[in-house]
Amino acid sequence: MLSEFDLIKEYFQRPHHAARAALGIGDDCALIAPTPGMQTAISSDMLVEGRHFFAGEDPVRLGHKALAVNLSDLAAMGARPVGFTLALALPEANRHWLQGFSQGLFALADAFNIELIGGDTTKGPLNICITVFGELRPGQALRRSAAKPGDDIWISGTLGDARLALAGYRKEFPLDEAALRTAAVRMHTPVPRVALGVLLAEQGIAHAAIDISDGLIGDLGHILKLSQVGATLDVDALPAGDVLVTQETGLRRAYTAAGGDDYELCFTAPASSRAAISAAAASVATAVTRVGTIDAAGGLRLVDAQGAALDLKLSSFDHFTS
Amino acid sequence: MLSEFDLIKEYFQRPHHAARAALGIGDDCALIAPTPGMQTAISSDMLVEGRHFFAGEDPVRLGHKALAVNLSDLAAMGARPVGFTLALALPEANRHWLQGFSQGLFALADAFNIELIGGDTTKGPLNICITVFGELRPGQALRRSAAKPGDDIWISGTLGDARLALAGYRKEFPLDEAALRTAAVRMHTPVPRVALGVLLAEQGIAHAAIDISDGLIGDLGHILKLSQVGATLDVDALPAGDVLVTQETGLRRAYTAAGGDDYELCFTAPASSRAAISAAAASVATAVTRVGTIDAAGGLRLVDAQGAALDLKLSSFDHFTS
Repeated sequence: MLSEFDLIKEYFQRPHHAARAALGIGDDCALIAPTPGMQTAISSDMLVEGRHFFAGEDPVRLGHKALAVNLSDLAAMGARPVGFTLALALPEANRHWLQGFSQGLFALADAFNIELIGGDTTKGPLNICITVFGELRPGQALRRSAAKPGDDIWISGTLGDARLALAGYRKEFPLDEAALRTAAVRMHTPVPRVALGVLLAEQGIAHAAIDISDGLIGDLGHILKLSQVGATLDVDALPAGDVLVTQETGLRRAYTAAGGDDYELCFTAPASSRAAISAAAASVATAVTRVGTIDAAGGLRLVDAQGAALDLKLSSFDHFTS
Repeated sequence: MLSEFDLIKEYFQRPHHAARAALGIGDDCALIAPTPGMQTAISSDMLVEGRHFFAGEDPVRLGHKALAVNLSDLAAMGARPVGFTLALALPEANRHWLQGFSQGLFALADAFNIELIGGDTTKGPLNICITVFGELRPGQALRRSAAKPGDDIWISGTLGDARLALAGYRKEFPLDEAALRTAAVRMHTPVPRVALGVLLAEQGIAHAAIDISDGLIGDLGHILKLSQVGATLDVDALPAGDVLVTQETGLRRAYTAAGGDDYELCFTAPASSRAAISAAAASVATAVTRVGTIDAAGGLRLVDAQGAALDLKLSSFDHFTS
């Protein structure tokens, strides 16, 4: 039988490339040598079977997604990724699962040139907890509390296809197989917007940012609350995913505004940054769209393309009330 | 009903004391400002209900233990604790449990003057994943690979009472209620040997160290393997816990040598460090005992008080084979 130590050695311990980590897997702690003068950004996310992903989910996709959602938090802060730890509870040491999971995980880690520096494995109901580390210069972080009245509100990429795929799996309405397959890519393999977030922070061209995980309205709400501002959001300007854009208006509005699992960035920036933002986004081949304005008056106002008020009765996802 | 955000605010968000963390709970990432010239030590441990603790375990004790086992990893490296993140999966947002858990957690955090800087909460089978951060000067870490032939082997505190308590709970043999209650303190509320570990590292008086979580023999085995050395261990010199010391020799030998859940330090040091180690241990009111010697020849030799070979047929705990 595969022991805990064999499991780590076989699937998670790789040649140490020492770029960032002074000491990786195999001791009581990992050691990293912070770049002088930089702050360390840290984020931790826990993914639970049946909650964040379906039972029996493809392990390659799961390895990708578990790391992607954490990198998305670094992106939202504007931090450059450095490394991560992985704590993993598994019902059994299944070689097929471990092979797939580590493959998906390391493919994404390699794409961002970051290293798995430590962690823990144990038996238990499937649970994946990744903690990522990044670096940024003091004062450059894209804080949720930094939105200013008059700021534009921007969205990277497109929204809603992940939620559409979930609806397809749940058969909430008919969705043909090809459409489901396309939308599901957004659900299973989100692409963290790290390059964009880092540029926005390092060039000092954005104020506040958050990554959209629980749905735009709820996540934008965190910015509004912490910045003590309000906003007007043009719901019809929200960029819908490739499949969602072909659906009817009501669904498109609902899923772009409050779909969840998008892992795009929502950020605010002064109007004077428009050209710089477009140039930065183009340089990393990421679409960005202006979708509203930060207001001095509190509250979130949803409007349609004509500027008329919309009442969508949408709510954000909450793990303990939904 | 208690929402995810209310839960965090009510039980886990405390006045930010900004000693170490530049930015705590409430943004996409926490930010810490590393002390110039210091390395960051990182460790992550995952505790699963029914595996690391009994279902229905007292939440105050659990809050203590979840952080203690992580601090113990910093102690084994000789790193000064700075802060930690907490990712928590809960079957339900139970106020009694949350109140107790956060109380136990923060009591220990306050004792070490460290801050909860971020994390995640979600619904799911009870799972607690803490990642701790510490600091140390480059070159001072107590590495598992640093034991040298001729080194003394030392143990902090006492061993085996946690394993004895487990045996008591499992009714593996009769243990009276008072004895069980005393032994159980070691199982439920281990005290991480941070002050000792930090002194050993900062004074440069020890070579290798590990914390004893899976049983001494198994954990010492990691040092031997990574240091490419062997050892002779005087099993009768192993310091038994207050309750275990009253039990018969066979049990005492088995549980001190391979009990598990001790969270004491096992460290190696040259004979020239003996006086300095005794002084350092006394200064932090921690008992230390010499229990053996590192040998150039590979393998672990267990001997009794007379130096005669012992064959205890003991094995270390492994999460996937036991």
